[in-house]
Amino acid sequence: MRILVINPNTTASMTQKIAVAARAAASPGVEIIAANPADGPASIEGYYDEVFSVPGIIEEMRKAGEVDATILACFDDTGLDAARCISPAPVIGIGEAAFHFASLVAHRFGVVTTLSRSVAAIEHNLMKYGLAGRCGGVRACEVPVLDLEAPQSGARDLIVAEARRSIVEDRAEAIVLGCAGMTDLAQDLSNVPVLDGVSCAVALAEATVRLGLRTSKLNTYQAPLRKEYRGTQARFSPV
Amino acid sequence: MRILVINPNTTASMTQKIAVAARAAASPGVEIIAANPADGPASIEGYYDEVFSVPGIIEEMRKAGEVDATILACFDDTGLDAARCISPAPVIGIGEAAFHFASLVAHRFGVVTTLSRSVAAIEHNLMKYGLAGRCGGVRACEVPVLDLEAPQSGARDLIVAEARRSIVEDRAEAIVLGCAGMTDLAQDLSNVPVLDGVSCAVALAEATVRLGLRTSKLNTYQAPLRKEYRGTQARFSPV
Amino acid sequence: MRILVINPNTTASMTQKIAVAARAAASPGVEIIAANPADGPASIEGYYDEVFSVPGIIEEMRKAGEVDATILACFDDTGLDAARCISPAPVIGIGEAAFHFASLVAHRFGVVTTLSRSVAAIEHNLMKYGLAGRCGGVRACEVPVLDLEAPQSGARDLIVAEARRSIVEDRAEAIVLGCAGMTDLAQDLSNVPVLDGVSCAVALAEATVRLGLRTSKLNTYQAPLRKEYRGTQARFSPV
Amino acid sequence: MRILVINPNTTASMTQKIAVAARAAASPGVEIIAANPADGPASIEGYYDEVFSVPGIIEEMRKAGEVDATILACFDDTGLDAARCISPAPVIGIGEAAFHFASLVAHRFGVVTTLSRSVAAIEHNLMKYGLAGRCGGVRACEVPVLDLEAPQSGARDLIVAEARRSIVEDRAEAIVLGCAGMTDLAQDLSNVPVLDGVSCAVALAEATVRLGLRTSKLNTYQAPLRKEYRGTQARFSPV
Amino acid sequence: MRILVINPNTTASMTQKIAVAARAAASPGVEIIAANPADGPASIEGYYDEVFSVPGIIEEMRKAGEVDATILACFDDTGLDAARCISPAPVIGIGEAAFHFASLVAHRFGVVTTLSRSVAAIEHNLMKYGLAGRCGGVRACEVPVLDLEAPQSGARDLIVAEARRSIVEDRAEAIVLGCAGMTDLAQDLSNVPVLDGVSCAVALAEATVRLGLRTSKLNTYQAPLRKEYRGTQARFSPV
Amino acid sequence: MRILVINPNTTASMTQKIAVAARAAASPGVEIIAANPADGPASIEGYYDEVFSVPGIIEEMRKAGEVDATILACFDDTGLDAARCISPAPVIGIGEAAFHFASLVAHRFGVVTTLSRSVAAIEHNLMKYGLAGRCGGVRACEVPVLDLEAPQSGARDLIVAEARRSIVEDRAEAIVLGCAGMTDLAQDLSNVPVLDGVSCAVALAEATVRLGLRTSKLNTYQAPLRKEYRGTQARFSPV
Repeated sequence: MRILVINPNTTASMTQKIAVAARAAASPGVEIIAANPADGPASIEGYYDEVFSVPGIIEEMRKAGEVDATILACFDDTGLDAARCISPAPVIGIGEAAFHFASLVAHRFGVVTTLSRSVAAIEHNLMKYGLAGRCGGVRACEVPVLDLEAPQSGARDLIVAEARRSIVEDRAEAIVLGCAGMTDLAQDLSNVPVLDGVSCAVALAEATVRLGLRTSKLNTYQAPLRKEYRGTQARFSPV
Repeated sequence: MRILVINPNTTASMTQKIAVAARAAASPGVEIIAANPADGPASIEGYYDEVFSVPGIIEEMRKAGEVDATILACFDDTGLDAARCISPAPVIGIGEAAFHFASLVAHRFGVVTTLSRSVAAIEHNLMKYGLAGRCGGVRACEVPVLDLEAPQSGARDLIVAEARRSIVEDRAEAIVLGCAGMTDLAQDLSNVPVLDGVSCAVALAEATVRLGLRTSKLNTYQAPLRKEYRGTQARFSPV
Repeated sequence: MRILVINPNTTASMTQKIAVAARAAASPGVEIIAANPADGPASIEGYYDEVFSVPGIIEEMRKAGEVDATILACFDDTGLDAARCISPAPVIGIGEAAFHFASLVAHRFGVVTTLSRSVAAIEHNLMKYGLAGRCGGVRACEVPVLDLEAPQSGARDLIVAEARRSIVEDRAEAIVLGCAGMTDLAQDLSNVPVLDGVSCAVALAEATVRLGLRTSKLNTYQAPLRKEYRGTQARFSPV
Repeated sequence: MRILVINPNTTASMTQKIAVAARAAASPGVEIIAANPADGPASIEGYYDEVFSVPGIIEEMRKAGEVDATILACFDDTGLDAARCISPAPVIGIGEAAFHFASLVAHRFGVVTTLSRSVAAIEHNLMKYGLAGRCGGVRACEVPVLDLEAPQSGARDLIVAEARRSIVEDRAEAIVLGCAGMTDLAQDLSNVPVLDGVSCAVALAEATVRLGLRTSKLNTYQAPLRKEYRGTQARFSPV
Repeated sequence: MRILVINPNTTASMTQKIAVAARAAASPGVEIIAANPADGPASIEGYYDEVFSVPGIIEEMRKAGEVDATILACFDDTGLDAARCISPAPVIGIGEAAFHFASLVAHRFGVVTTLSRSVAAIEHNLMKYGLAGRCGGVRACEVPVLDLEAPQSGARDLIVAEARRSIVEDRAEAIVLGCAGMTDLAQDLSNVPVLDGVSCAVALAEATVRLGLRTSKLNTYQAPLRKEYRGTQARFSPV
Repeated sequence: MRILVINPNTTASMTQKIAVAARAAASPGVEIIAANPADGPASIEGYYDEVFSVPGIIEEMRKAGEVDATILACFDDTGLDAARCISPAPVIGIGEAAFHFASLVAHRFGVVTTLSRSVAAIEHNLMKYGLAGRCGGVRACEVPVLDLEAPQSGARDLIVAEARRSIVEDRAEAIVLGCAGMTDLAQDLSNVPVLDGVSCAVALAEATVRLGLRTSKLNTYQAPLRKEYRGTQARFSPV
């Protein structure tokens, strides 16, 4: 089984970190192909960055050719609907993957993400997926994505502090880490389950493939209508 | 990995059918332990039957000893919350498993179950899980569980007919088979994904175990408080 | 009029306390038949205990024979749906009874229950009944059911403290006491209505009977399908 | 116990009909005081009529003096919130009363009212009470209020036809009659419970009084602030 | 274009203040006709006052004759549905106008109104309009309407304090001023948009007129049925 | 006042049609600047096309320089959130504009769009805006965007037929035309209001500007964080 894991931003070091987490979560015999676009933002924080990551996601999906499943490794699940339209194979977002697993191990979960500007997109996704009622709240630790690993950012402590607030004030029984860059923090809150989207998505993608499930092509996720794309986007014309 | 699959009713032939489906869905090296209670209803159709299947479910969990995950193979997810309280390992219901996967491959899904009397419990579960908004409707084919395999029941045709109504009238893009006894019908509606709860639950249980996720023991799913159980239920006293 | 009030746990002293409250609430000429199962948990706290109280509830309903209404006196409304299936007469849960009356005397109400582990079931019930939007929050005083009367538990003060928080922080305009064992505390918060489920259920059961209303037998609450129950549960086979 | 039943329209024959239904539902020893305003619309159909019935409702409440409970006998529950502000005793609307009882005897209910113009107000009330999710739909038989009794209106047949559609198409398990003028039709649909708001409200008012419950005076239903009312409304100034 | 702006209370000084705000918001060539009823409450605070303002609103609409749009300048949107029934031209409430604009400039907004007793009506309106999910909370500054301008009331500071709490605790990104009497405070919170209902309603009314949109007369807002109104309300009989 | 109206697809004839509609709706003295991207899809039908229209939208916003408001003239409101991040001036989508106005003139509205593949995105937007409960349903006439004007497409009749179904089956009281290309059909359903998003958006943009309202820059719509964009997207780097 070949699973394509796309880091939607252009920061190769983050792609490596995601690849490590994905491979650690993958079953033996599952090949993880990690990629990131050559074009687009160095990190994704808020609605503007999201937009410019999606053409690169589509390009990486095309370059990768046939795979058994694709994972989009940005917690906003940027580009998920579009990606589903161009592939018969399942496409899984790391946000949704974490939300679904959290719903299986806890009555209510909390999310800790990076910046306040990213909260609304996560809230919209929860509403769209149907799982908003399972979430006690989305909190921001106010550390930008690319600072998560900088020791002086204090990211670890800030994330743990928000997680504790989520447990006490929002009655969360599990914590979802709301950024692909937090993947190495999943062990730190020992008394409740801590969910990392990348590993959740790998597990869910594998499971979906084994079940032989493929994206429904009725209505919403039909293949794009054949039409002309002009200018610099011409290479994305559906055929 | 050892996964306990409990058919909550006492009909051994149905347990066998479920075991076959579970093993077909399991990865190599995963042991499926299929069981059904000695005590309780021969089939589960509606709220009354549900109640009497749960003590037997708990008993089978105790008898099985330590396993990596437990699957409850009644589409109503009967006993799911109680089972989560007595096991540190994940417990997955076949109803919820199918709903979660359907949400990943379709914008909206439909459910086709056996009898009208079972619809309300499924609707309640969808609301509780948060996924009611993803479901276009729960329809009954009006064939009792134990008649599903009787050729003269016409079950297959009736289920296909309801599934088609679900697609046309409820705008479903995927169909969830709403009974563990329908597990062998999953291939028949070729133009949309058809989801069988048993195989979905096996895949999801495996995935949850591989992720190292266990049921949160904060608040809702704490181990039962130690207390006296009297009379014929004394053997279920929490210790 | 004969109303059967079942305390779903096996603690006879609590059954007596409930009977006193029920009789105080009953109109002249209404006979209250208080009962508790011989089998099952000494108290009900969380999902596990719930399960083992229901067979006993059904047994008490059968033993009592024909009555005009049945009240299930556990705040979780455990077994309510199953009980409705076996009786043509109305069956009322003390949780739902209190929620309905609270909706009539206040724009928003709060609930104070015993332990955190019981909160999720109450939240699910509120959602199922449709009244979640009327409830500002379910709070736990963290006193176990059987300690409510122990003077050293400080139950009264802890409950009053949570009720006050509910009024101030959750903007509750009425307080629902979330346990049958709190029935004697209903007078203590003089500035807002305080609702005790037992008396609410008696009043509502009487009202339903006087109206000649009986549980609908269409779809959801049909009499159980005739089928074999095996083993120790055989005595519960629908006939 | 004295219960004031106000028919909010000015048609005395309808007040008599409502009084008959109310007295039939009342317990021995409960005095029903039926009244209707001298001022206002002859019937209430839609939002415009509603407005002009409320000053008369308030006037009748004042004229009646102290009562144990007040019932507003228009299915739109017109004036309910205002009435609650001026009385310490409970005030019950016939719409809400019927919805609450329907929720106790059926998983899902349907409403059959008079005209399409009245549907939106009922839908808003259901949403406000929290019970919209329990209602399969509000249907209009398109017979005006004052024609309900005219034999040539065919009201009975038209109502029965809509009720049957509600059962089949909306999966209703009980039918709520959506007009005080339908009170004598409650027996006609024998296979599901049929609820008449007037008798439901009497039963609920009695129950609320027996429980000693009174409208919360915290926040929403405080007594009106003392202030000047000018002109023809001066007599309604809060004092 | 002629726009009728009705201050639903009888305080002429407040009508003048509203007229000033309305004219400041109106485009050149738009005539603002400000009016208030001669009959009714001096201010509207809570459900009781609301009721007695509506006949006067209708009377002012009739007296004004044909206009291009009507604005109801009480934040509770009192009488909005009734007013829509008697006019083919659009009728806009200042509450709804502010909510719609707030939804266009912020992901989530907060409301600061006068008294706690007015909160429930605003919450109900938000639910009815569909915009409750866009609102982080409705807060009261506890200053009565007619004290808003009294320097010793400290209204300005109290409103600003609640607005700041709304931003910090409820994550509001814009603030809606919840009373027509606050219209001159709209500039004071410089870091987020502050919305005044009067000017929002003028802008929205103009826009609706320019689009040629008129209230739908299908179902809900049909012209009132011709019928007799008796007594002091006779002058309101639909004709 | 200068309003930028961006047709997010690259079909210049459609841009002209939109410009005509926008200018017809604009007040005297309002300059409409119509533009479409040079790069991207010739029409937008479904999630895939949406993605490739947004970089072009952003580019047109930058090229246009300072304007008083921006309108995105694709009914899916593609790119709306991103566009709000880069402009202090209001940005209005034609879908949301039509939904807000429909809510002001009807209790419930229906939407008629082009293809089934576009329905889910509209449903998601309605949920996100909060107005899903005001919409009776989104229907597709199954005519592609660029065929709407082709006489042989029968578009007009197909749209009218779906609108009539929406009125009868979904109880819609107003019809929203779900595509910028339907803008010239707005007069055809005379008995209910018919709303065209382009003109609604022009009116709403003007209104927002006149009110001095600008997009909140707190949390969700902050200016993008300064960061590197690589490759072909480098020109979109926030500065």
